[in-house]
Amino acid sequence: MQATKSFDDRSLRTALGAFATGVTIVTTRGPQNDVGLTANSFSSVSLKPPMVLWSLAKSSPNIDVFRSTRHFSVHILSAEQEYLSTRFATKGIDKFEGVALERGPDDIPMLSECSARFVCRTAFQYEGGDHVIFVGEVTDFMHTKRSPLLFHGGRYGMLFQKEAAHSHPAEASDALRSSDDLHSLISQSWFRIRREAIQEPQRRGWTEGEYAVLRELGREDGLRFSQIEALHRDHGQVLTPEVVRTLAAQGLVRVSEPLDADSEIWMSPAGRQAIIEIVAMLRASEEEALEGFDPSEVQLLKQLLRRVGSELMPRP
Amino acid sequence: MQATKSFDDRSLRTALGAFATGVTIVTTRGPQNDVGLTANSFSSVSLKPPMVLWSLAKSSPNIDVFRSTRHFSVHILSAEQEYLSTRFATKGIDKFEGVALERGPDDIPMLSECSARFVCRTAFQYEGGDHVIFVGEVTDFMHTKRSPLLFHGGRYGMLFQKEAAHSHPAEASDALRSSDDLHSLISQSWFRIRREAIQEPQRRGWTEGEYAVLRELGREDGLRFSQIEALHRDHGQVLTPEVVRTLAAQGLVRVSEPLDADSEIWMSPAGRQAIIEIVAMLRASEEEALEGFDPSEVQLLKQLLRRVGSELMPRP
Repeated sequence: MQATKSFDDRSLRTALGAFATGVTIVTTRGPQNDVGLTANSFSSVSLKPPMVLWSLAKSSPNIDVFRSTRHFSVHILSAEQEYLSTRFATKGIDKFEGVALERGPDDIPMLSECSARFVCRTAFQYEGGDHVIFVGEVTDFMHTKRSPLLFHGGRYGMLFQKEAAHSHPAEASDALRSSDDLHSLISQSWFRIRREAIQEPQRRGWTEGEYAVLRELGREDGLRFSQIEALHRDHGQVLTPEVVRTLAAQGLVRVSEPLDADSEIWMSPAGRQAIIEIVAMLRASEEEALEGFDPSEVQLLKQLLRRVGSELMPRP
Repeated sequence: MQATKSFDDRSLRTALGAFATGVTIVTTRGPQNDVGLTANSFSSVSLKPPMVLWSLAKSSPNIDVFRSTRHFSVHILSAEQEYLSTRFATKGIDKFEGVALERGPDDIPMLSECSARFVCRTAFQYEGGDHVIFVGEVTDFMHTKRSPLLFHGGRYGMLFQKEAAHSHPAEASDALRSSDDLHSLISQSWFRIRREAIQEPQRRGWTEGEYAVLRELGREDGLRFSQIEALHRDHGQVLTPEVVRTLAAQGLVRVSEPLDADSEIWMSPAGRQAIIEIVAMLRASEEEALEGFDPSEVQLLKQLLRRVGSELMPRP
């Protein structure tokens, strides 16, 4: 450990990037035009008086404007506002074009939609190496309940609130009884998400095997018997010629004869219509199950499930 | 909008809490003892020279120590270190007890495990309302790849990295063909996570219905026929007396006669042993499917699935 050290810039950046932050857009009014930029160096400082800070590179083309302005506005972005973050970090474009604005003191531009907004009077400007630290006294603010956009390790992220520790039941020592393992949770979700449609095949008088064939054909019509057989086998099911014959007899599929491993199986218009109806029921069921999820949570759940199921994704 | 305004403290705190942050522990050495505290006011300031800042309330019992110290260390906590955050935010305890420490310049205590650590020489101390802003020049640092602990809206959180936009295939216009909807993803995960065990019931010569009964009894032994029937119905299955009789004939369950809706059904030792073996296979399958997940991701996935499946959780 030395008092002065020459660091590798990239290692230092990487280490500093380990501190996760929200993302803000800071705006003010220049002599001629509106000025704004993306910053994640925001920090709240004081409650009485209310003060926040952020810092800006001395090399920024906007440094003179912020050095001379009396007011600025800080906007904390929500998870849905990644596009605004990108836009206000891009040089050489009209960042404000088409952005809904309100006006604050000294006519500073203020974005209308964000997680929180702080209107500030510049209180102090401090030396900070190659940056200037701006401390603003908050003169007005607003806040909405939106999930925040995050930045960490040079990438955008989303927040997930940890559940309070006590709401995690300890896994039961008897593994058979546990209903909190991932296996049970996925199983329950799998049933929940198709609840409205789950008894529909049965109501239509189809066996599970018959329904499975129709679902496969719904995804890819004209599969060969051997292909459907392989898909069934992956899922622990057995495909018999009788299943296909029964579907054909009901007018739900057409089969190239003679029925053997190479036979192509096609849905009839009636079969397709039936599957479309069931898929619509599944969609309704899914929507109901996801009530109370915000879009970023659904995205996150999909992202995680895609990784769990990834090995099954490529289909023959 | 006024130049000065008396804010409701709680609203202001709430609005400031909309900015998500990592969590740090800042430590130094006082005249007699080690000093440390939890802070989320960290911000990186400058690269050349490397500088970071954080702020501390003037009312803090530690303010004098930090005002007079020449060095301090900032530790960025990982998602697993919530307990350290809580401990270093607690008054009246020996915060360092049992914590593995290294020593830095001027003998300052440094935590060994965290996402990143910055050893700093105090460069500036700035006025910041009811806080002092400490700017440190980084004299040494380290970094490990650990998921960060987050703080937002007064609660701890975890980070989720957004996937790049282009890796989200647009949902196919033909809803039947889509394999990226939540329904398909859950279905694929459900098959993936029990892949090793999925053909096992069949290998043992059980029908799906027979296996379902054994699984139910594995969760709760001694169910009545009518109870199992209701569980089956929820999942779109039908329980017939023949299923139970077949299981009894194989010596897997015992049934109170005569077999009717009120009959109690108990697993035999052989039935229990079989289910234990299958559950062990399921566990192995689950572990394999979750390779590459870190513990906080598994926790998160469970948390989301618990909400999807929540309405099915209470069992009779």
